[in-house]
Amino acid sequence: MSDLISLGPGGEFDRIRAIWRRLGDRVQGAGDDCALLAIGGERVAMSIDVSVEHEHFETGWMSLEEIGYRSAAASLSDLAAVAAEPVAVLVSLGVPKELPFDAAPDLMEGVGRAAHAVGANVAGGDLVKSDRIIVDVAVVGRMVARALSRRGARPGDGLWVTGRLGGPGAALAAWKAGQEPEASARARFANPVPRVREAAWLRDHGATAAMDLSDGLLPDARHLSAASAVACEVDLDRIPLHPACLDPLDALVSGEEYELLVALPGDFGEAAAFARELDLDLTRVGSVKPGAGLTLWRGGRTIEVPRGFKHF
Amino acid sequence: MSDLISLGPGGEFDRIRAIWRRLGDRVQGAGDDCALLAIGGERVAMSIDVSVEHEHFETGWMSLEEIGYRSAAASLSDLAAVAAEPVAVLVSLGVPKELPFDAAPDLMEGVGRAAHAVGANVAGGDLVKSDRIIVDVAVVGRMVARALSRRGARPGDGLWVTGRLGGPGAALAAWKAGQEPEASARARFANPVPRVREAAWLRDHGATAAMDLSDGLLPDARHLSAASAVACEVDLDRIPLHPACLDPLDALVSGEEYELLVALPGDFGEAAAFARELDLDLTRVGSVKPGAGLTLWRGGRTIEVPRGFKHF
Repeated sequence: MSDLISLGPGGEFDRIRAIWRRLGDRVQGAGDDCALLAIGGERVAMSIDVSVEHEHFETGWMSLEEIGYRSAAASLSDLAAVAAEPVAVLVSLGVPKELPFDAAPDLMEGVGRAAHAVGANVAGGDLVKSDRIIVDVAVVGRMVARALSRRGARPGDGLWVTGRLGGPGAALAAWKAGQEPEASARARFANPVPRVREAAWLRDHGATAAMDLSDGLLPDARHLSAASAVACEVDLDRIPLHPACLDPLDALVSGEEYELLVALPGDFGEAAAFARELDLDLTRVGSVKPGAGLTLWRGGRTIEVPRGFKHF
Repeated sequence: MSDLISLGPGGEFDRIRAIWRRLGDRVQGAGDDCALLAIGGERVAMSIDVSVEHEHFETGWMSLEEIGYRSAAASLSDLAAVAAEPVAVLVSLGVPKELPFDAAPDLMEGVGRAAHAVGANVAGGDLVKSDRIIVDVAVVGRMVARALSRRGARPGDGLWVTGRLGGPGAALAAWKAGQEPEASARARFANPVPRVREAAWLRDHGATAAMDLSDGLLPDARHLSAASAVACEVDLDRIPLHPACLDPLDALVSGEEYELLVALPGDFGEAAAFARELDLDLTRVGSVKPGAGLTLWRGGRTIEVPRGFKHF
């Protein structure tokens, strides 16, 4: 049950720890972004990720197609986090009976778009009447090479992130203030890209640990720190900001980014090659040290850790 | 897209057909109880099955542990239907915030019990706040021999069911009338048994087609008929009734049985061996004929088909 320590602090994570404790040795392979199952001679990666109306999104923010896309992309991002090759998705839909007949096909259109974009198919599903829209997506992938994990970061590694952070948080903040988000921030929320190719590239170039940014850089760096049993330091002045995000503190708690947080050995010199080949930024935001926990730096000194974004 | 004809008539099935039509060739492997995926050198069976409070159950009927068990058993039953060997389950839970901290562990205790009973582990999950309890279970299995399918029934086969039908329907009827169900009927609803060993036995003894009874014998026999492109005849006088079920018409529309409906060649002579080895009835309820659709017999004559139990 070493999995019990692979999450950072927080009420949601306490609940998950309580579940793991109760299940004891009936849990297997959990604690990373995907479970890795040995099925015959293959290693199969699996994950599940549920999106529920009023908790993760409102129908006023996005089309049903976008809601379906986004839910599937969130789950496919877990396959990216372990550098698996996506194979299939299975989807349970909850659909309010007040919605038109086409609501379920519209949601699944988006699911199909997300799956197709990373080479996966829709392999099955379930449909139920529900008072809120529910899109629950289970994903299956194949490990064709080494799996990435949250557990491998070593003192001396650098901490890196793909892309630019803070877009989804800026979009959420605008919607919650009753405004329409800036278009590029809205796109980061409604159309996130699972970093499947990027993860394979980083694995092939020596990444020691990886996870996807779903809770936000602050809580996620804590998960990585706990899982790898190392200290993590993040320098706020280095966080690459989405244009709609003006404060790195906002970027730190912007969830549902679906970018990658990666540990790379030493002074990894191939970020420019990554950017050139994958047309995406790769930015060093901090370092892995001996010890435990997360330390934040800003303006050359350590700062207090603000409370993270909580979705439970 | 031959999958479009593998379901019987009905509003819920029209919705599913509309989804399949929209997805076009992005759907793969759907239309049976499980999708069969080729992953490297292995055939992997997968399915997903969602249970939602007020749609599939009420908390006053069962403990949270039983709700978790039952939801997982329903999904594991799909692995049984294709004669797969269960490997793992992944679970998304929606839990109202008013429930005590232990609600999620209690639900997962039941999921773990169902998985463990058929040799599977819990490999991951997701947790979200929700106004209703949601238990969505994705299951993964390995095909170690021929897969059973809804598609293989041939004219001349007999139609058989495992167990005795009508228990879950009787329990539901009692609860909906504000009464406590008879204990053995309640157990059939709260603690259904995925027929994993039974399906493997039937496959090894020549079953030509199979599915699990989740919608009820009437709609499910129609699905089998449509998927196999044959006519099915069911004799109500032959349906083996659970003691709490007095009318075969009730047994016909009792859903969530999770018994097996199987086509077996000719006058299959090994039902007694099945009963002896697996301690469960195997009863012939009808025949497969050339043609299409479902015909019901009672008292030596055909009768009108009543409307089936609908959960959408």
